[in-house]
Order: sequence, then C-alpha cells, then structure tokens
Amino acid sequence: MDKTIETTFPVHELIARRWSPRAFAADPVSSATLGSLLEAARWAPSCFNEQPWTYLVATKDDAEAFERLASCLVDANGWAKAAPVLVLSVAQTSFARNGKPNRHALHDVGLATENFVLEAVSHGLVSHQMAGFDVERAREVTGLPQGHEPVAMIAIGHPGDPAALPAPLAERESAPRVRKELQQIAYGSRWGDPAPLG
Amino acid sequence: MDKTIETTFPVHELIARRWSPRAFAADPVSSATLGSLLEAARWAPSCFNEQPWTYLVATKDDAEAFERLASCLVDANGWAKAAPVLVLSVAQTSFARNGKPNRHALHDVGLATENFVLEAVSHGLVSHQMAGFDVERAREVTGLPQGHEPVAMIAIGHPGDPAALPAPLAERESAPRVRKELQQIAYGSRWGDPAPLG
Repeated sequence: MDKTIETTFPVHELIARRWSPRAFAADPVSSATLGSLLEAARWAPSCFNEQPWTYLVATKDDAEAFERLASCLVDANGWAKAAPVLVLSVAQTSFARNGKPNRHALHDVGLATENFVLEAVSHGLVSHQMAGFDVERAREVTGLPQGHEPVAMIAIGHPGDPAALPAPLAERESAPRVRKELQQIAYGSRWGDPAPLG
Repeated sequence: MDKTIETTFPVHELIARRWSPRAFAADPVSSATLGSLLEAARWAPSCFNEQPWTYLVATKDDAEAFERLASCLVDANGWAKAAPVLVLSVAQTSFARNGKPNRHALHDVGLATENFVLEAVSHGLVSHQMAGFDVERAREVTGLPQGHEPVAMIAIGHPGDPAALPAPLAERESAPRVRKELQQIAYGSRWGDPAPLG
C-alpha cells in the first residue's frame, strides 16, 4: 500500500514513504538486512557520542527468543506477532563515563531508531514502533542490567495483506496519514512567532 | 569534507553521509529548504501520534531572533554562532489528550529530529545538535509554555572551511567518526546473547 504523503515542502522519499502498518507478510528478513538496520542506528548522533542505545533482536528462526519479546506485547498489539522480527530498543539512562543522569538518553535512542526504521524503508521493509508492552516484564525476561530502560518494541517485516487483519484494523491500514499543521509545530525563536518560512 | 563511514553492513547514503561538523559557511539556507526540514520532522512517527515536538527556528535574516537562541549557547559551542540557522527542539512532556506524562516525549522528539537532520543531508546541508546550552535561559527567552521542555539546540548550514576554526576544533573536523562496535549495541532477545546476524 502506498501511503506516501502530500506535503507543502518536498521531503526525501525515504522519509515520505515511511509509515507504521499493522499488516506484515510472513517472509523472513535476512540477517544481512538486519545488519544494515542496526548499522544505521549505530551511526546516529548522540550527546557526547555516548550512544546510549541497545537493540534486542528476535526473529522467528528462534521461536523461544521471539516469544520472549512477543510475550511482552499488550493484547491490542497482538497483530505484531505476525511480523517476522521483533526488536526492543533500550536506553542507558546515565552517562557511562561519569554515572550522571543523561537527560538526552531517550532522545538519542529516538535519533538512532529513526535511522533504523528509515534504513528499513530503503530495503522495502515496513516497521511499527509500539509503546504498548509490559515494561517491567520486558526488563525481566530480557535480563536488562541496572541503569537500562526498555523504550519501544518495534515490529519489522515485509508489507502484508491488510485483508488478513481483523476488520477494524484492516480499515485503519487504508486511512490517510495525518499530522498537525506545519504552523503548529514550527515557530520563530519565540513561541508563537511565525517560523521564517517566507 | 567527506566523512562517509565504512560499515560491515551497507547503510543508505543519507544516513552514512550525516555527521556533525563545527565548520559552517556563512551562506544562508533558503526558507523553502527550511520548510522541507520541518516537513520531514513533522512526518515522524510518535506514540499515539501525539507529535510532541516543536521547533523554534531562527535565521540571521532576523538578527534579534537569532541572538535570542545564540545567547543560550555555552561558550564551548560558540562556533555554532557562525551557522546561518539555529533551531531549538522542544518536547511537550504530557499527552495533550489526557495530561498524563508521556514517557516517550523526548524519544519521539529524537525520531522527528533525525528526520530533520537527514533531510538536511539530502539538501547538501550539515547540522550539529547540542546539549550544551542554558536550558533555563532558553525556556525564558523563547517563552515556552508550561509542560514544554527545551531539548536540543541545532546548528544548520552549508559545510564551511575547517581552517576558519580555532586549531583544536579544526583538528577534530578531520578526525574519523567513531562508534561502539555493532556487537556492543545489538543482542538477541536476552541481554548478552548474540544478535541473529548470521
């Protein structure tokens, strides 16, 4: 399904084509492709180059490993179990070099994860990030060391057939993508001043 | 300066080419290009599609507006004042729909900002995000409403001449980009297990 957006100002096709479907095909994702997604995340910028991100990756080639992450999903995200790959992003919340809280830890995981999902687009894959999972269970079953926080669960795979989803979810697949207006998210250097967009 | 990275697994050129220089040319960035950067951020994914991001944008076409952001930078980031555009990313820390804390607010600003800086790469621009600014001063001078947090200052512009920087900074411009090894940021679904990378 092509969900490319229409924009006032043009946007790179990698960014324009990315969206978060719920329909995934069963086809596996190759380990080389997973490698590219992780490399993309790896090269993101971060505060003091701290790189506070870790990715826990499970594919259906290892049913037990996959179930470990899948078992953390809330029921409403049950559709994600059809994806061939689940990933948990993890943030290290203090600086490794001095133990002080890293105010930008989650932010920087976000920077890296956007690289990850855009790289997926370039491989013809789709992804869907979810906050809807049991954070405490995830922490336990994955054995996260202290100082690390589960951030988001990410389903990755090839685009699937929306008709295979339950009716209400199937309908949402074809709904147009919506966002706030540009004027609501961009200002001048004082809140409420117009952004310098000519 | 070409700082394209060498990777074990190939990475999309937009992601491979992005880096954070300190040398900026004085040439302005057109308002149409700024529009594309903001559109790219606008279309990022977010938890419940909350879109908790706002960007405050200042160009040197309005010296007073520019100085408002520039005055927040710590001395060590003085080089950023040579850039033609400064942007402050801002996070709304609670959900607009129910006032509850949004655990993913900063994370989602990160997702949007990575779109922003990758879109900049596609326009031949460079960017550099900074945590080094006076957060309280930024909050005041920009008039942030309650419930919003300054996140990162971002310098944007065309690549400049490293020789124009003070010597220690000039040297850093040509240093190779470094990251943790892939094996340090990617595991299986249990911390420490190898990631399924073949």
